[in-house]
Amino acid sequence: MEELMASLSGEIFAVWFLIGAALVFWMQAGFAMVESGFARAKNAGNILMKNLMDFCIGTCVFILIGFSLLLGEDVLGFIGKPGFDIFTAYGSFDWSNFVFNLVFCATTATIVSGAMAERTKFLSYCIYSGVISALIYPIEAHWIWGGGWLSQLGFHDFAGSVAIHMVGGVCAFIGAALVGPRIGKFTRDSAGKVVKVNAFPGHNIPLGELGVFILWLGWYGFNGAACTSVDQLGSVFLTTTVAPAVATTVCMVFTWVKYGKPDVSMCLNASLAGLVGITAPCDVTDCFGAICVGAVSGLLVVFGVWFLDNKLRVDDPVGAVAVHCLNGIWGGIAVGLFATTSAPGNDTLTGLFYGGGLHLLGIQLLGIGAVIGWTAVTITVFFLIIKATIGLRVTAAEELMGLDVTEHGLVSAYADFMPALGMPAVAGAGEGRPGDVPAAPIDDAVPVQVRSTKAVASDGAVKMSNVTILLHMEKFEALKAAMLDIGVTGMTVTNVMGCGVQKGKPEYYRGVVQDITLLPRIQVEIVVSKIPVRTVIETAKKVLYTGHIGDGKIFVYDVENVVKVRTGEEGYDALQDIEQY
Amino acid sequence: MEELMASLSGEIFAVWFLIGAALVFWMQAGFAMVESGFARAKNAGNILMKNLMDFCIGTCVFILIGFSLLLGEDVLGFIGKPGFDIFTAYGSFDWSNFVFNLVFCATTATIVSGAMAERTKFLSYCIYSGVISALIYPIEAHWIWGGGWLSQLGFHDFAGSVAIHMVGGVCAFIGAALVGPRIGKFTRDSAGKVVKVNAFPGHNIPLGELGVFILWLGWYGFNGAACTSVDQLGSVFLTTTVAPAVATTVCMVFTWVKYGKPDVSMCLNASLAGLVGITAPCDVTDCFGAICVGAVSGLLVVFGVWFLDNKLRVDDPVGAVAVHCLNGIWGGIAVGLFATTSAPGNDTLTGLFYGGGLHLLGIQLLGIGAVIGWTAVTITVFFLIIKATIGLRVTAAEELMGLDVTEHGLVSAYADFMPALGMPAVAGAGEGRPGDVPAAPIDDAVPVQVRSTKAVASDGAVKMSNVTILLHMEKFEALKAAMLDIGVTGMTVTNVMGCGVQKGKPEYYRGVVQDITLLPRIQVEIVVSKIPVRTVIETAKKVLYTGHIGDGKIFVYDVENVVKVRTGEEGYDALQDIEQY
Amino acid sequence: MEELMASLSGEIFAVWFLIGAALVFWMQAGFAMVESGFARAKNAGNILMKNLMDFCIGTCVFILIGFSLLLGEDVLGFIGKPGFDIFTAYGSFDWSNFVFNLVFCATTATIVSGAMAERTKFLSYCIYSGVISALIYPIEAHWIWGGGWLSQLGFHDFAGSVAIHMVGGVCAFIGAALVGPRIGKFTRDSAGKVVKVNAFPGHNIPLGELGVFILWLGWYGFNGAACTSVDQLGSVFLTTTVAPAVATTVCMVFTWVKYGKPDVSMCLNASLAGLVGITAPCDVTDCFGAICVGAVSGLLVVFGVWFLDNKLRVDDPVGAVAVHCLNGIWGGIAVGLFATTSAPGNDTLTGLFYGGGLHLLGIQLLGIGAVIGWTAVTITVFFLIIKATIGLRVTAAEELMGLDVTEHGLVSAYADFMPALGMPAVAGAGEGRPGDVPAAPIDDAVPVQVRSTKAVASDGAVKMSNVTILLHMEKFEALKAAMLDIGVTGMTVTNVMGCGVQKGKPEYYRGVVQDITLLPRIQVEIVVSKIPVRTVIETAKKVLYTGHIGDGKIFVYDVENVVKVRTGEEGYDALQDIEQY
Repeated sequence: MEELMASLSGEIFAVWFLIGAALVFWMQAGFAMVESGFARAKNAGNILMKNLMDFCIGTCVFILIGFSLLLGEDVLGFIGKPGFDIFTAYGSFDWSNFVFNLVFCATTATIVSGAMAERTKFLSYCIYSGVISALIYPIEAHWIWGGGWLSQLGFHDFAGSVAIHMVGGVCAFIGAALVGPRIGKFTRDSAGKVVKVNAFPGHNIPLGELGVFILWLGWYGFNGAACTSVDQLGSVFLTTTVAPAVATTVCMVFTWVKYGKPDVSMCLNASLAGLVGITAPCDVTDCFGAICVGAVSGLLVVFGVWFLDNKLRVDDPVGAVAVHCLNGIWGGIAVGLFATTSAPGNDTLTGLFYGGGLHLLGIQLLGIGAVIGWTAVTITVFFLIIKATIGLRVTAAEELMGLDVTEHGLVSAYADFMPALGMPAVAGAGEGRPGDVPAAPIDDAVPVQVRSTKAVASDGAVKMSNVTILLHMEKFEALKAAMLDIGVTGMTVTNVMGCGVQKGKPEYYRGVVQDITLLPRIQVEIVVSKIPVRTVIETAKKVLYTGHIGDGKIFVYDVENVVKVRTGEEGYDALQDIEQY
Repeated sequence: MEELMASLSGEIFAVWFLIGAALVFWMQAGFAMVESGFARAKNAGNILMKNLMDFCIGTCVFILIGFSLLLGEDVLGFIGKPGFDIFTAYGSFDWSNFVFNLVFCATTATIVSGAMAERTKFLSYCIYSGVISALIYPIEAHWIWGGGWLSQLGFHDFAGSVAIHMVGGVCAFIGAALVGPRIGKFTRDSAGKVVKVNAFPGHNIPLGELGVFILWLGWYGFNGAACTSVDQLGSVFLTTTVAPAVATTVCMVFTWVKYGKPDVSMCLNASLAGLVGITAPCDVTDCFGAICVGAVSGLLVVFGVWFLDNKLRVDDPVGAVAVHCLNGIWGGIAVGLFATTSAPGNDTLTGLFYGGGLHLLGIQLLGIGAVIGWTAVTITVFFLIIKATIGLRVTAAEELMGLDVTEHGLVSAYADFMPALGMPAVAGAGEGRPGDVPAAPIDDAVPVQVRSTKAVASDGAVKMSNVTILLHMEKFEALKAAMLDIGVTGMTVTNVMGCGVQKGKPEYYRGVVQDITLLPRIQVEIVVSKIPVRTVIETAKKVLYTGHIGDGKIFVYDVENVVKVRTGEEGYDALQDIEQY
Repeated sequence: MEELMASLSGEIFAVWFLIGAALVFWMQAGFAMVESGFARAKNAGNILMKNLMDFCIGTCVFILIGFSLLLGEDVLGFIGKPGFDIFTAYGSFDWSNFVFNLVFCATTATIVSGAMAERTKFLSYCIYSGVISALIYPIEAHWIWGGGWLSQLGFHDFAGSVAIHMVGGVCAFIGAALVGPRIGKFTRDSAGKVVKVNAFPGHNIPLGELGVFILWLGWYGFNGAACTSVDQLGSVFLTTTVAPAVATTVCMVFTWVKYGKPDVSMCLNASLAGLVGITAPCDVTDCFGAICVGAVSGLLVVFGVWFLDNKLRVDDPVGAVAVHCLNGIWGGIAVGLFATTSAPGNDTLTGLFYGGGLHLLGIQLLGIGAVIGWTAVTITVFFLIIKATIGLRVTAAEELMGLDVTEHGLVSAYADFMPALGMPAVAGAGEGRPGDVPAAPIDDAVPVQVRSTKAVASDGAVKMSNVTILLHMEKFEALKAAMLDIGVTGMTVTNVMGCGVQKGKPEYYRGVVQDITLLPRIQVEIVVSKIPVRTVIETAKKVLYTGHIGDGKIFVYDVENVVKVRTGEEGYDALQDIEQY
């Protein structure tokens, strides 16, 4: 009967174990959102790609080597025995454990991408991400969870403050230090001393907060998946809720007092810090312990961000080191301080503050030190090999342009908010078959009365003019092509709103009438001298004419001077280039 | 054997109970996304912060007082006995119930933030949010779920239409009324009569819809977590699906007919309205009941939004009152109308429309009235105390600037979409160590041939010129600094696209070639009179020159007049200010 | 005892079945995010609405007819017997199965919206989406899962590669072909031959990736929900993880080699392709099989996107056909190739590559063919009926403006990023009661000294001037109204940043000081001739004046010429219109 109950109870928690694994998988989305939201728009696609690929590449290498190094038969307490049971003995394979350990492993790898964001080569990322998943993580995790020497010593890290977050954080720190800060992060004086730290505000804070909530939700699986009783699971849920809540509150109060205002993005980091801190002790501590862990985490993350910026001069765009490395260490230590047998399921571990003496704390410190050592040495070796071969960092030009376009050919992760970028030609929109745009014979647009080649202004100088054209967005490509045809070599394009007296039909938003008298338009400015203004006007008219209201207007202004910075040429000469300005 | 089965079945549902709690926690993300998506971009960070903090602050006060007021030993049917079992008796504490009730409690508090969004002081929010979690919610929830007088009477509110949503909605309504409408919401004539209601469209509808889907998913936990049999859970899932689906469909048809087009954001509200409506009766009604509940909810939400705007003149940015307050009441009433014993697990309750007479309906109405009374009185008292002391509302200037920057120092929640904001100086990008920017000796840039201090135009008037500079984004800070150095006091900065004939390497998007002939540039316009144009040009050249293509161009235009609005000064004098324009 | 265990184990998996259903519901959010993220901003609200409504409308029709057609008593192997047990026999209804099959059904319908996005009438969408949910899906799903003829033959499709994804994909393909490509997708020469395929980059890639992660998470429910043992569930989780990971990695490598760079959005499609591919065989194959399925999927999706664009000339904005149709077919075939009895729970099926011969493969191919036939014929009939009656496609003008505003009256899904759109009048902001804006007597603003009606420039021509006004955003509506009052018929509005020497209080972002010297301003340009410049200036001064720093500045420039494209009028005449430009 006992046996039956245990078996069925085991079945319940086996299903929960897999649900938990799905929740941990979900944390990948959280990391992707936090990291891209906290970075700049021009690198958003690159970071998203990294977060996608570290899971996918990680899966490939975990199948081949990682899983058996982690959970294979123990070899001298150091590694699991490599093997291919997943292929050769699938029928009796431990499917659930594979999935569960894979999603944990991927978490470790993904932490690094945030700290090295916005300037690391994508290829290099793929490689070191694979190395972490294949070797670095599986081996230290074998020590802690796979029957290795640390688990034999009694080291306790329930869900991975040390095994996952600290390891990811250490790699993140070393990586961020080796790849160097982003261009513009630190302003230095002529002696090379940093005189100013610059902030690069995250480009999408709502995405960042969404990511934090995704991670927090996933953490209930992260911390809870391995529980084997309802009591234990309930207590883990409690500590996993209390610690981040307290951390965030403490951080809010602290930043409010210190900086004058409660800092949004730091509080988001604090929630994660509290979650990382409670990850190791979540099953062995009580509510009071969780409060203490959280309070320290909430301060530690602020300190960490400040310390990296102002003392170590290491540029960590998303705060990954402060969150994962420092709080991972703190979580490992907290087991030795706050473990108590009043936590359901914990009958053996007691920390210093609950009268357990220094023994447990000592083991924890030993384990932390050993894992830091292993991680730091191996990742440094791999980073240096990468640096010496294919290089860790993109060129300065690539970095300034953004990694989306340079690494992935993605002109923008937010194409429509970057005006006119990559808009296709829609010369004859509305004619012929829907959706099919005839390649209009734009050349016909230029049988134009050319007045003079070099107009002379009243004061004897060469006449230069600014022709400003307002048009529908969908006519832009056709106009551009026609202008290039008549010899125009540069133009300035601005997104504007055209506003007029005619009102459209009223539109309702939630039952409230909205006036729409502003409509999006493209403004193109062309400065010409050799090419007659009349040619530009007639060409534009030809391209823009449809006979309908809204065909656009053209304005002509006098230009007194033009200077081309690269050559120093002025006036007429400054306009005779074939280069993009 | 029976006992064993019950025990194991209990274990299954105990695990599900915690999974449900995690899903309810997830609803916090949904509220954050809906509320920020439906607000304006300049307040997005503030709303996100509020949604984060109400959970975190709520957790702190729920530990200290809320939980025991709710579930402590009943005192006279009114409150639970305060206590600190969570600290003193952790080993036998009801961990799961704590977590579950905490996430429910946080839902109540978070509803309020939406209705009071975009003009409420953050500090005041923290305070009243804490009060709701510590006192107002726990006490009425004790009445309904904690063994209090309403539960003794037979009041039924399975998952909290009344206890959670109506209470949150009542606080939201009173708060929105007391804090007053956002500036510009209502246009009044000279007699103070409202002549026009203005729409403030949500700034990010995709985020809003994501939030609705998050909430809907979370609602399966919200409504289902407390179920204790598979049949009951299946039926609850069915009603929880049908009601919002019908509500949304009804709302779509209704807005289509009434306003001419199906309204997106109103339909999103309708989904939530249907969910709120079915929350109380989800376990006691059948599919037909769920359809009726949903149909009414879908209309009620449209009516509610209209009624607040046009009759009560209460400004509720996200529709929280229409969704939660009105539909919370409706859900409570619906129990008395649609309860049927054909719903699995319900053997006792029958509503009016299923032949149960008026008894149950009467109890429901009594309960609704009592809870409204309690909530309205207590929250009003607290709001008035806050208003009289620290104030409820930010200043008009803060409101116009947006709460992100004024309350949190967050210049924008979407930094990169606000051009050039907070961009760091990258004077010497590309030189020296990567990422380290030397503080360039820009002062050297000004040994410039100064022609005359007060140029005189051909017509005898003072000459004024507009110098328009096109440059790379990363040079902007250096240019700005140099211009301030030579005495320029104002400039206009625009994000434009530079377009030229030279094509870059083709980039592929999903295998399709993209031409990239438009590149982002910053356009800076400076109008000068006293400062010679030549000085501006030479300084700009010095700063912008690198010798590479793309160094930029400078255009000079004649300016006929300048007027400074504040002082009425014109011409030369209008430019001699030291103030920002 | 056996029985007891089975019953309790059944209870465990019955709860998991419902959790799985909730996860499948969650996939609706994933589709909404992927499809809107991959489309253009002007259609985002429309796509979100479609994804919301197909679930809601689908629920309504599934109650009325779909569910009984699917799972009602089998009639000749072809359909289930229609019935209304959900209303007449609710007490013994199969609630869980209803919810589960409903969310599956909704997935089928939602696939179509992506392929037909950005040009399909909303009303038509509602209709065909309803038809798929009511008839097309339930009947073929009855064949496969409801006891129909394919299930009797031994056709295997565990979670719906064929029944769901292929069916959705076939409808998507036929729909996209019939509705035609988006305007501008294909550039044709005069003979109608396509000479260029244009890319329309997705407007929000982060949203797209979020959607993919949501879908991937949901897929653990999609593939796993019907499992009935822990072993089977664990193995399904493993295959469901491995296949998409391999597919994404293969796609990354392939696009890197073929296009020079790893393509972000294609890799996101590849993840989904791998998930679709493994859906049918997830329970009958092993890790090796999952790797093979994924590798093929990762290539198939790239091929599919290319093939539709370049050979079939069918415009599928989100890649729905490549992902769901092609990989749905592939998944169905893969059962016949990779089924193996080493997969836990599969004792009978063996595919060709595991020595099972061609029998199973033959049945799979038969089933795929039959379902394609059924789907293609029925959906074509319905599409043609819709096309002939209410029409499938919006007008070219509506398409160019975007479906958000034309179909839903939603001016923009991102209102605040479209400057000044629909901003309410805040003439007297700061005066009187907070939030109440007096309708300022702007007419008073025009008692202005009118100098002359038709100014004459020095060269005898008619004088035209550009008056450029820089102002606070919140004053814009008042200015606009005042300008219309004095006869101004057009203006150009640009979002700019004003930059000055005065620094605001420093703001901290994550503890780093940010200089804020750039503040958002609106720039309004008005070109006048008949209306005296002085009138414009004095009117603007009146409206803008508050006496505070930041009231704005006005610049006046000479205009040499103006051309109105529609009429060809120039100079003075070009400005005498009453139409919006």
